[in-house]
Amino acid sequence: MPSWTMQPIGFVHSPFSQTEQVPRGLGAKHEEEGWFEILPEFAAGLEDIDGFSHLYVLWVFDRSPGCELVGTPPCDMRPHGVFASRSPRRPNPLGLTVVRLLGRDGIRLRVRGVDMLDGTPILDIKPYLSSVPEAELQRGWLAEAEARREKP
Amino acid sequence: MPSWTMQPIGFVHSPFSQTEQVPRGLGAKHEEEGWFEILPEFAAGLEDIDGFSHLYVLWVFDRSPGCELVGTPPCDMRPHGVFASRSPRRPNPLGLTVVRLLGRDGIRLRVRGVDMLDGTPILDIKPYLSSVPEAELQRGWLAEAEARREKP
Repeated sequence: MPSWTMQPIGFVHSPFSQTEQVPRGLGAKHEEEGWFEILPEFAAGLEDIDGFSHLYVLWVFDRSPGCELVGTPPCDMRPHGVFASRSPRRPNPLGLTVVRLLGRDGIRLRVRGVDMLDGTPILDIKPYLSSVPEAELQRGWLAEAEARREKP
Repeated sequence: MPSWTMQPIGFVHSPFSQTEQVPRGLGAKHEEEGWFEILPEFAAGLEDIDGFSHLYVLWVFDRSPGCELVGTPPCDMRPHGVFASRSPRRPNPLGLTVVRLLGRDGIRLRVRGVDMLDGTPILDIKPYLSSVPEAELQRGWLAEAEARREKP
């Protein structure tokens, strides 16, 4: 089986030092501000990033305790497959977050919407270009869990 | 510097065997259908995925010829940083696509919106849960390039 070795392009500066501090579960809002500090050798790759309002950030769950293919998330009492959830216990420990870009100061990007721990390694940043219209979205077991919570 | 080794959880079956066949540039539509074939040892992780209409797929640009921090994309005459573009020549060769889930047959997911080459390794699949409202999106140099094309 092929494999690829990934190294950080930078690190997250976030207000969260413990997993328990990160808002999780149904209706969790991610409005916290933080910084991405990009390593100087990758600074040229930030050219023109300032014009985008939102970015995808791909990062590593570097403090996650290994993989669990089926698990029960904090927002439901039922187990779900890891590929149908945002669980940190993934076969490849990859995280994905959409953040609002607030500003850039050289190799530092100020962002809103961080949900990673302080010191989290960043693997990639991409511009967010388009959205799926809300009317087309179906949210599976999450929508069901929300409905159960509203009508207990 | 820390590093992480990633292995495929499955592979893409797509109609594209050559990079040139994948629609690129301004206004490119990705409506092609394809399959994701998940490796049997990860099948349990697909539990309940059927309820989601859209998925994020994280994959590897396994045929990309190395990194280029600043490059000129096919849709513009000006160079841009790799983190402000969808270029395949990234420090970590990670791709990200949003697909529509059309159906599941065991370890096979039928999807619409593939923009990867046939045989592309998949590293992770996550449910797509919410969108950035279009009114809040700014698309930087891409919007400028589109405007230049409309008013030559």
